[in-house]
Amino acid sequence: RSGKQEIEVVESPHFGRMLLLDGVVQVTERDEFFYHEMLVHVPMHAHGRAKRVLIIGGGDGGSLREVLRYPNVEHVALVEYDERVVEASRAFLPNLSVGFQDPRTQIFYEDGNEFLKSAGEPLDVVIVDSTDPVGPAEGLYSSSFFQRASEALAHDGILVVQTESLHFHREFVIEIQRRLREFFPIVDLYTQALATYAGNWWTFSIGSKLHDPRIVRQQTSVVTRYYSPEVHPWAFLPRSLYDKLM
Amino acid sequence: RSGKQEIEVVESPHFGRMLLLDGVVQVTERDEFFYHEMLVHVPMHAHGRAKRVLIIGGGDGGSLREVLRYPNVEHVALVEYDERVVEASRAFLPNLSVGFQDPRTQIFYEDGNEFLKSAGEPLDVVIVDSTDPVGPAEGLYSSSFFQRASEALAHDGILVVQTESLHFHREFVIEIQRRLREFFPIVDLYTQALATYAGNWWTFSIGSKLHDPRIVRQQTSVVTRYYSPEVHPWAFLPRSLYDKLM
Repeated sequence: RSGKQEIEVVESPHFGRMLLLDGVVQVTERDEFFYHEMLVHVPMHAHGRAKRVLIIGGGDGGSLREVLRYPNVEHVALVEYDERVVEASRAFLPNLSVGFQDPRTQIFYEDGNEFLKSAGEPLDVVIVDSTDPVGPAEGLYSSSFFQRASEALAHDGILVVQTESLHFHREFVIEIQRRLREFFPIVDLYTQALATYAGNWWTFSIGSKLHDPRIVRQQTSVVTRYYSPEVHPWAFLPRSLYDKLM
Repeated sequence: RSGKQEIEVVESPHFGRMLLLDGVVQVTERDEFFYHEMLVHVPMHAHGRAKRVLIIGGGDGGSLREVLRYPNVEHVALVEYDERVVEASRAFLPNLSVGFQDPRTQIFYEDGNEFLKSAGEPLDVVIVDSTDPVGPAEGLYSSSFFQRASEALAHDGILVVQTESLHFHREFVIEIQRRLREFFPIVDLYTQALATYAGNWWTFSIGSKLHDPRIVRQQTSVVTRYYSPEVHPWAFLPRSLYDKLM
């Protein structure tokens, strides 16, 4: 118990080590790469030459590990509100926490909303790798947060936010898409089936200031287990399905 | 208890009525259409003018309901090994069992493998809508079954088989793809994220004797809630991902 939440790392015969926060599975060693690769590589490949990246949440280190694969990345700020999550990952999830020592990484222990108020130099990509949008994470889905993120991004910046299950939380996804449209000219949605998140048809909402996020602009190749430039456009809903569901 | 299995219909506040066989969820009123539409409309639209269709399993009636939407369909044989599943659906799942009374429907209570030994006139589409491939359904995934299905199909016939989760049962999916290749010149795989099946990234394996199943050939429009001619090709894995996973 960190004072902010209950942190557990348990071993499962099928999923390997699993990180739970307040009883909800956040990461399993077996399938975390589907989530982290899709969360990170879609906005990074859509941007094409990101140098400055901000990750909000993601204290397990999985998203950080993926961002650091890009040689063009010069600086990554990881803003995690609970220091003990980072400590737990360092201690028990070595495959996830490899990026904490990278010289390009800077870790801040504070609320993502507060951090954005004084984010400094313009950012290229902002990644919201949060817990479910209740309690502490709720503020990361507000209109004021999206406005701050948009203002902190460069003219061609991209924001990506994990937005729960299309099967279980469609009304929520619709609302987030609507809020993003207030501050980003291009708003879109992509999905990935994830075994260990309830409702599983996981959605990622993306707000882009300049580029169509369906298009791969990154030239440098990056080592991945699942993501590929062919998976990239496929992950987005067909336009007619997007119009029907959203 | 039917003597063959335990059949339950339960009411869930979130999923509506659910059909369970031996404790495993088969159908929920809330999301059954994702499964039934994708199982049926992909092979039917790939074929383009199916007249004679065979459904093996599917005693709840959901697949039958979808097949009967096609005016070109003249005859549907439903081969269900447990009469009590059909009775339970008739009694408790009216939205699924609407097709049992259609004059084009003929119901047979026997094993699908046995039925195929004397299937009569060539079939256009064979749909295997079975329970998990253990116990009674195991024979519907054997090489000898696929051979019989291929022989029972017309020269442009198509077989589709539900093949479990890509997250949880990838080795099984690979093996079924291999077996299908023994008897079908064109073998492919499509997926749909389903909330209520364990592992959820559901796969459908398809064997086709003539047509590329990624291509929509059906001209007549059919009323659907989820499937569309744009969803059709999207449901198939990108070729490079197929090659990597299979």
